[in-house]
Order: sequence, then C-alpha cells, then structure tokens
Amino acid sequence: MEAQLSGKREYRVTFLPGGKEARVAARATLLAAAAAAGVELPSVCGGEGICGRCRLIVRQGQVEAAPTLHLSREEIKRGYVLACQAVVRGDAVVEVPPESRAGREAVVDLDAREFLAPEAEAGEKFPREPLVEKLFLSLPPPTLEDNLGDQERLFREIRRFRPAPILQAGLKVLQSLPALLRDSRWRVTATLAQRGGTVELLQVEPGDRAGTTYGAAIDVGTSTVVAHLIDLNSGETLDAEAKYNSQRAYGEEVTRRIIAAERQGPTRLQALVVEDINDLVSLMVDRQGIKLSDVVAVLCAGNTAMVHFLLRLPPGALRRHPYVAAALAPPPVRAAEVGIRINPRGLLYLLPGIGGWVGGDITAGILATGLHKCEGLALLIDIGTNGEIVLGSKDWVVACSASAGPAFEGAGVTCGMRASRGAIAQVEIHPTGVRYRTVGDAPPQGLCGSGLIDAIAGLFRAGYIDRAGRLRPDAKLVRERAGELAFVLVPAGEAPREIVITQRDIENALRAKAAIYAGVSILLREMGVRPRDLSRIYLAGAFGSHLDLRNAVTLGLIPDVPLERVHFLGNTALAGAKLALLSRTAWEEAQRIAAGVTYYDLISCPYYYDEFMAAKFLPHTDLARFPTVRGALRLGEPV
Amino acid sequence: MEAQLSGKREYRVTFLPGGKEARVAARATLLAAAAAAGVELPSVCGGEGICGRCRLIVRQGQVEAAPTLHLSREEIKRGYVLACQAVVRGDAVVEVPPESRAGREAVVDLDAREFLAPEAEAGEKFPREPLVEKLFLSLPPPTLEDNLGDQERLFREIRRFRPAPILQAGLKVLQSLPALLRDSRWRVTATLAQRGGTVELLQVEPGDRAGTTYGAAIDVGTSTVVAHLIDLNSGETLDAEAKYNSQRAYGEEVTRRIIAAERQGPTRLQALVVEDINDLVSLMVDRQGIKLSDVVAVLCAGNTAMVHFLLRLPPGALRRHPYVAAALAPPPVRAAEVGIRINPRGLLYLLPGIGGWVGGDITAGILATGLHKCEGLALLIDIGTNGEIVLGSKDWVVACSASAGPAFEGAGVTCGMRASRGAIAQVEIHPTGVRYRTVGDAPPQGLCGSGLIDAIAGLFRAGYIDRAGRLRPDAKLVRERAGELAFVLVPAGEAPREIVITQRDIENALRAKAAIYAGVSILLREMGVRPRDLSRIYLAGAFGSHLDLRNAVTLGLIPDVPLERVHFLGNTALAGAKLALLSRTAWEEAQRIAAGVTYYDLISCPYYYDEFMAAKFLPHTDLARFPTVRGALRLGEPV
Repeated sequence: MEAQLSGKREYRVTFLPGGKEARVAARATLLAAAAAAGVELPSVCGGEGICGRCRLIVRQGQVEAAPTLHLSREEIKRGYVLACQAVVRGDAVVEVPPESRAGREAVVDLDAREFLAPEAEAGEKFPREPLVEKLFLSLPPPTLEDNLGDQERLFREIRRFRPAPILQAGLKVLQSLPALLRDSRWRVTATLAQRGGTVELLQVEPGDRAGTTYGAAIDVGTSTVVAHLIDLNSGETLDAEAKYNSQRAYGEEVTRRIIAAERQGPTRLQALVVEDINDLVSLMVDRQGIKLSDVVAVLCAGNTAMVHFLLRLPPGALRRHPYVAAALAPPPVRAAEVGIRINPRGLLYLLPGIGGWVGGDITAGILATGLHKCEGLALLIDIGTNGEIVLGSKDWVVACSASAGPAFEGAGVTCGMRASRGAIAQVEIHPTGVRYRTVGDAPPQGLCGSGLIDAIAGLFRAGYIDRAGRLRPDAKLVRERAGELAFVLVPAGEAPREIVITQRDIENALRAKAAIYAGVSILLREMGVRPRDLSRIYLAGAFGSHLDLRNAVTLGLIPDVPLERVHFLGNTALAGAKLALLSRTAWEEAQRIAAGVTYYDLISCPYYYDEFMAAKFLPHTDLARFPTVRGALRLGEPV
Repeated sequence: MEAQLSGKREYRVTFLPGGKEARVAARATLLAAAAAAGVELPSVCGGEGICGRCRLIVRQGQVEAAPTLHLSREEIKRGYVLACQAVVRGDAVVEVPPESRAGREAVVDLDAREFLAPEAEAGEKFPREPLVEKLFLSLPPPTLEDNLGDQERLFREIRRFRPAPILQAGLKVLQSLPALLRDSRWRVTATLAQRGGTVELLQVEPGDRAGTTYGAAIDVGTSTVVAHLIDLNSGETLDAEAKYNSQRAYGEEVTRRIIAAERQGPTRLQALVVEDINDLVSLMVDRQGIKLSDVVAVLCAGNTAMVHFLLRLPPGALRRHPYVAAALAPPPVRAAEVGIRINPRGLLYLLPGIGGWVGGDITAGILATGLHKCEGLALLIDIGTNGEIVLGSKDWVVACSASAGPAFEGAGVTCGMRASRGAIAQVEIHPTGVRYRTVGDAPPQGLCGSGLIDAIAGLFRAGYIDRAGRLRPDAKLVRERAGELAFVLVPAGEAPREIVITQRDIENALRAKAAIYAGVSILLREMGVRPRDLSRIYLAGAFGSHLDLRNAVTLGLIPDVPLERVHFLGNTALAGAKLALLSRTAWEEAQRIAAGVTYYDLISCPYYYDEFMAAKFLPHTDLARFPTVRGALRLGEPV
C-alpha cells in the first residue's frame, strides 16, 4: 500500500460541494490544490497559517496537517484543517464549509478611514448618536401609587435618557415584556432604533447588554461590495471585508441587470446581493467572536439600482426616460424582511439617493467630504462602474453620472483584479523595464485600478503608446498574444501567472476615463465653472490605499489643476455610510443632501458624445486643457 | 314512499357541522328545528323572511322553501334556503354555513348614538379627520426636470393636502408602486393611517377609490362585544351588530379568564374574541354590500384585560398586586397580525387604558361625555361586568373599578338576556299584576338589565320583597320553583317560556348594585365630594335604549340626586370609540385623558367591605343617603 502510494507522483483532490478537482504533487498544500482546482478560499495571511480563514473539512483520504491554534479539538475531530497548513499525501475529498465559500477576499478597506484626512473635517463634527443603540435601564418596580403599565414604565425610563417623543414597540416585544422585566428584576437593556422621525424599541434584553451593539456599514457597488463591522458604542471599525458583487453573473453593467430583473423577475438579483452582504457580515462577525444577534443595524450606501435590487423594488423605470426611481429615500426596513441575517429585529438603513443614476453612495460621498459645506467650489469624482461627478459648494450642488464601466475596479481588464492582496497597485514604466508594488507586498496576482492608471500613464510617458493609446508593436516588452498586442508587466517567471496589459485593456480604460472626464467637463461648462475655479477636487473610488494623482492627470481622468488641490479619499461611500450609522445628525444631514442636490442628466446633454470622443485621447484632444501634461511631455497638437 | 312519509308524524333534522339533531313535526320550519336542536341561527326579523339572515344549505331530504328575494339563483341551486321560510317534509340534513354560525344576534346598538344627547357637546367639537382615510391624487408624471422617485412624487402630492411630516410606506407598497402608478396613468388613491405621530401609507389603489373607506368601532366587553360599521368619509354609522363574548366559556369573570390564559396560554382566549370581532364585522360588511378590503381600520375600546387578550399580551400581572398592565396604551398594529380579517394592511387601534382595571372603554366614556372638560363635578358610572366609576371635572379626574358581575348584562340571572329583540326592557309591578315592554315589541324571551332594575324596584315598591331583597313567600305570583322562591313575571302561557325572577337572581342583582354603589360612595368620600355637589351623573351601559332612572335610585344603584342631573347615555365606550375613529384630534385627546386620570384601587380601600355590605340593602342600610326613596316609600330605619 505504502509502496503503491509512493510510486504515484500526483494525487487527485476533490472539493465538495461542486466536485471541482485538481491533480497536485505529493506534499502540495490543499490551498495550492484549491487554487489549481479554481476553488476560491479566503486567505488573508497568504498561506502562512496566521489568519486561520482557509478552513476545510477532510472527508476522505490522506492529508497531513500541521498543528494550529485556529482549530478547536472538536473541529479537529470533525476533520477541519487549514488548507495552507495541510499537505496532500494521497487522493483526498475535502469539503469547503460555508464559512470558507463564496469568494471571500482579503481585507482591503480597513484603511478607508485614513483617507478622511484633514479635508473631511465635516465628518468629525457629527455627535456620536448611532442610529441603533442599547441603553441599560434599572426600572423602579411598580407599586399601587406608581402603577404604570410595563410598556409605559419602560418608555418613561427611556425618555429620562433619550429624547423620544414618538416611541413605538412591536407586538412581539410587548408580548415578552412582562415576564422579561420581572425575571430580570427590572434591570434590562433596551435597543432603540431611529426610524423616520420616531424611535423604535427593537428588543429588550435582560441585564446589562449595553456594551454589545454592533452594526455594519456597507458600500454596495455594482462591481464590489465592501463591508465594515462597527462597534456602535465606541465608533471603532472592528473589521472589514469585501468581495465582488455576485450579480456580475448577470452583466457588468447595471442596465444588463435591470433587463434581467425585468425579464426574470427581481428575486434572483436580490438574493445574490443579499447573500453577498450575509457572507461579508457573517465572516466578520465570526472572526471577531461577536454574536450575530448583537448586530442590530446594517446601513448601505449604494447606487440607486443596487438599492432597488436589495429591496426588490422594480428597477425598470430607472433605465427609461426620464430615469425615475421607485423610491429615492426608502424607509428603514427590518433587515430580515429582505433576507439579511443579523438580529431578527435589526434594521436595514439605506442612504437616500439624489436621482435615478446618482445614488446613496454619492450622498455618502458628499456627507463624508463635506462638499456641500465648502466655501469654495469643489468637485467630487467617485470612480466606480458608474463614475459620479458632483460639483458645488455651500451654495449649490449639482451631480451627474457617467457610465464608465468596471475597468478601474479591475473587471473587463485581462489581468484585472480588485485592490486586494497581491494586486499591483503602483507601477512605474521605464524604457529599461517595469517596477511595481503590490498590496501587502505579496506575489503579484493582477492589476487593480490604481495600477492600471499608473501603467497607462507610464506607457504613455515612456512612449510605448501614442496619444490614441495604440501600443507600438515593435517596442520592447510588447508581444502579440492571441492576435492582439499586449505589454508584459510581469513575466510568467516572476509571478504565479504572466501579467499583461492588452490593447483592448487600454481601450477599455481610455473609454472609462473619457466617460468620466466628459461628465466633469460638461458639468463644469453647464455651471459656468472653469477648472482653475475649483478650490478642491476630491477623488474617490475603490483603488485601495494608493492613487498617483499626477498619473490621473496624465491620463486625462481629472482636470489639470495644481495637484495640491486634489485629494484622494478612497471609499467615500463607505466613509459616509459609517458617519450616518454612527450619528443620526449625519443621517439627517444625508437626507437633506439627497433632497437638495440637483440631478443633471448627462445622457440628454446634446454635446456629450463630442466631449466623450474628444476625451478618449491621452490626455485629451484639446491639449490646452492639460497644459502641465503638454509641458512635461512636450506634446504637439493635434492628435 | 309518499304514504310512508305521510304516516310519519315527526321528522329528524340534522344540523352540520356538529351533527346536532331535532325531531320536529311535519311542516315545522327549519328555524324552529334549529331552536329545538339548540343550534343558534341569526335572525333579526324574528322569522318573518325579511332580514334574510337565517341562511342554511339543504344537503339531504325533503324541505319545501317559499320564494325569497334574499337568495340568488346560484345560491338556490346550491341548496340555500332561509330557515324561517323552509318547512320540513321529511328527514333532512342541513348545513349551517359560516355566515350563519356563531350566535349572531340582533341589532341592538344602532341607537347608541341617540344617547349622545345635548350633554355630550364635547363629541361634536372634534373635526372630521378619521384615523384612516383615502385620498384621491392625480400626480404630474415625471419629466427630466421633475424626476423625483415614485415614492417621493406620491409623498409630495399627499403633503399638498395633508400635513404629514413623517410619512412612511412599507416595502410591499413600494414594490408595487411603479407599475401601479403607470398603469393607472398617475391617478391613484392613497390610504393614509395615523400611527403614533406618523402617517403610514397603507396602500395605493388605481383610480379614484376615495369614497370607499370604512372602519369598525368595537366595544369589546367582558360579556358583550358590540360593533358598529362606520363610513369614514361621511361619519355615518351604517350598521351595528352585537354578540356575547365567546370567552364566556372560560368564565363570566375576567379573573377566571386570566387564570385560564396563565394555565393554558393565551392563544385560545385571543382566538375567541378575535373570531367574535370577525363574525360581527363580516356580517355587517356582507349585509351592507361592502368589500372587506375596504374596511381599513378597527378601533376597539375594551377593558384592560380584553385588550391584553386581543393582542395576546400576558395578562397575569393584572390580577396580582399592584395590578399592572403589560401595556396601557398599546401601539396600533396591523389587524391581520392578531387575526382580524379586514384589509390585510388595515390597522387595529386600541383606546388607551387608565389603569389595570380601568380600561380604554372608560377612556372612551370620558371622551364621549366630555367629563374631563366639565366646569362642575361629574360622575360617570359605566355598568358592565365590571362597573367603572369616574369622578371629576376639568381640574382633576379619578377612576376606579368595582367587580359587579354580569347580572345587568343579562348573565347569571335565570331568565336573563342581552337587550336584544324580545328582551323585557321595562317592567311595572302593581299589586294586581305585571306590565312589561320588550325590545322590538316582540314576544318576551327574557329579561335584560333595565328590566331587571325595573323589576326589583317594582317588587320592592309593591311590597313583594323587603329591604334585604327577600321575596314574601305568601305573595301572589310568588312560587316555589326547584326549592327556591321565584316571582313569575310572565307566565308560560303568554310567552315561549315562563319568565321568572328568582330569589337568587335578586341577590345577584343586589350584589352587583352594591359593588357599584360602594365604589361610588368610596370615590366620593375619598375625594371629599358630597352627592349633592355632583352637577351631573352620567349613566352608561348596555341596557338597550331604556333605563328608568327613578328605579335606579330606588334600587340604590346611583346616588339620590335630583333626577334632572342624571343622564343615561347608553354605550359610551362605543360612542367614544367612534369619536376617536373619526377624528385624530379625539384620538389624541383620548391619549391625554388616559395619561391624566388618576387610578384609584378599590380593592385596597380598608372600608370597601363595610361599604359593600351596607349597600346590599334596598336602597341602602343608611336611609339618610336616599331621602327621596325614604320619603316616597315611607320607609323606617333600621333594616
């Protein structure tokens, strides 16, 4: 038996559920086997046995696992191993347990807070008064002289600490109240939620549970869903998690998904994004050792279509003139009503949107940047699958949306990926070669948005591409690949796979930047604002922690203004979502922002197409708009 | 066959479901057969084929039915007959359809409004602004310039007509909104409900449905449930219906039912009273040809225990010192949540209670009488199974509850019945004989509360009973019956059955009046008020339309004040419920009343028992308290 096995050089590993298989060499790790089989496992530490997230259950076969503190005795008895700490010694069948499924990815956005640097003073001003909070109360027991009903006694005590003119409790809470109050000797913790202009008593727990109040702030993007787990008491961000939006199976573009919802009904699209949220929340909660029932609120900032999918509101009118939402400011609903698994009575809040194509993520961005309070004119560009552009000051604010596509989120690009571990986030291209840096300094896996911007700007500066973005076929490092020219960023030997940027990738990126720049350009022109009038440009997007602003200008993505006026703030949707979750004053301000911003419809602008076409060049057809780039690169007109 | 049948003098009629049987003579009506079998059928007209309510379905056998306009061709094909218009011609099996089950009784309270005579000016002052209303709206369709979301567009239009700072809509309404607005060409009817300090958008219907808004005001009493169907547009009472509370199977006294709920859980007790409400509402709705889905609100005035049963709130603490409710002012809930069948999104409102044993029915009574706004001191006595007593004026109001038992509601009395058709409601007893009058001038069936008061006062005045209520065994019309003395009010020959009043009946009635009078007496004494200080006494209760106030004084039920100060108002609980249903100003006033009235606990009064014992005599041990009675009857002290 031993001899037979030792003679075999490769073993078969089968992954359940689904039955994907890989053939791997003896002593390969299960993590490597999973990668070979195309099974995504979560891994934060990169296979070093530190994060404890790549959990598998061995069902059959020969697997040798190193000791680990991440598994309990009980789990080990049940066959659990860490994939990165277990090596294959024979054919094996392993199961991916639910907590390890569904493409859970690396922590990427914990640092989003860092970007709320000096500019976002606005955010600092909101008082700490979370939308949902727990209050420990010690009630005086009833007497003949003080014989209020149980509900009224509880409400009286709550109002001693919180102004709550309209307090409401559901029947289930009231039904449990008499026994609960008496069993806990009138010492209870009330969970209070802001709901419209009222306060809802979500639940009552025995004893003092005031320290266990958690919420999730979530940026529900077309391509990416990013979630932060927040301690609503301290305001601290405990954990972060992100993944691609599973709705992508129905198309990268929102419009495709709306059509799918119209044809097949909205149930499946809702389920996909809800499960994404559930995956992210449950993973963070497990990791932090928090009870799911202590998560009492989820606040989502999403574009209008995502909010429609989440709530199963019919999205059809969004894609037809005049692009109207079913609801721009949907009410808070019971999270369970849409299938989100937190405390069964916990609430789902949705930041209000501004118009059909400018959603709550942008309201959040305005809230986080404080653009609506700026003395001078400010521009906010949020680069996602849709690029939203906001222009204004304390006096007026106008916003529009440009369909950019997902190139800057790493999708629709040959070697694109999210700004997670191993993503090339910074690139320098010299005539002699390429230098790059990855997220977490891990082996390079692909190219994220900031890396793509760096790469194209670098290719342009180094002369690999012309102003139309065409690769020079004769240049060093340019190869033909499946009938198409491609620039090799990382050769196959240096990385798990060759990382290239193809002619089509460049075209996709230029279309994306052109759509955004055209939007900026039109909004400025319509409002009679020159780029130099802008006192600030806020740049937002899921680029990870790094974006080279000079390269963004070289690309022609943002107007050519002095760089000290440009501020990269990372994920402002998430930052705004957190502000609103942690302060009802911020939440109310978000309502006012959404109601007060003017929506500008780019699609009906008669010269949009001209602006778009002119912006597809590097940096732009009209070099006068980019004097810095023209000067630095000594470019001559015309293209 | 014919011969065989004709030879048979009696036929067997079986009633489904349940299988009760009766043997009746040929050509007996099915209504008579039902009575003989102990099957209760509704009948308003007393068997004259007019009301059309005694519907049955003939399943087998020989039944001959007279033509009627109350049944459709389709129904006749399916075997429907009116029981009073169908005679038995052979053995038969008939089914009691749901609409004819559950002891539906005669209309009794349509005239409750009449009692809100000049005294109740307060009621007239409330503006017509029903708790739930329908509003027809013609929305401007969206354009690029006016591109609000559907929800926001609807809310904007609603706010043009109604002040609704906090407007909320459930997810289901929002999900249906886009298609509904477009299909109806932006002409819709919104149903708006007051809920706490907010307005809920209950539903949206296509087109103009503003004229179809109905609600039910319901007095949920321990013994009797009375319902009125109200057109919320016009304020008109369309129909009325009443029945005994089916919870009586668990005991006449509230305390018995609370114990039952504690032992067996509250589900059954809830179901019984909910089904009573459903029976009453569905019957009225059918009769009026109204769609059940157009009934959008039910407002109940009930004692605290009834509200607990209705909402399935644990009632246990109500019967234990210090007699505390789970909730005195429960929030409006979806009627469907407790099983009440109206519009699935319609609301159930409950008038707030004052204390553990002084409930929303008394809040309603105060609201209806305007006692809390009186310049002078007023007393409200609501005579039900619990007798509640309210004393006060615009400056202060205090209330207590006395356990009277159901004698005045016709229960616990040998020939007692509700004040429905055939009930003896007025009695005069002369040395020579008895004169009486029945509700609807129908053949006498039994004795209701007002008849009982008349009868005992009459017996006392005519010398049939002494001051202790003892029947003189030698008097004319006094018989011994099952070892007990009884006075024959109606001999067997004059009525379907002999109607008597027994020694025990008299004792029950005296105990009931003593409990109430003791409460009155203690409340006056505790507040330092003499009877002659009372500018008004409001008397309320389910006595039907007649109560002889002089007899109530003779009995010692109410203080001996000049009779022009005493006003009998009928069912003030129902009157107040209707005011609140029809005006949110009245509803809000009810909240303030409930919160402002002081609850006095009679049970812990140290001299309650003494007062009770002293009040068990006719009119009272202390004749000085009843100078009018002493003078008129030339009574000498002591008893």
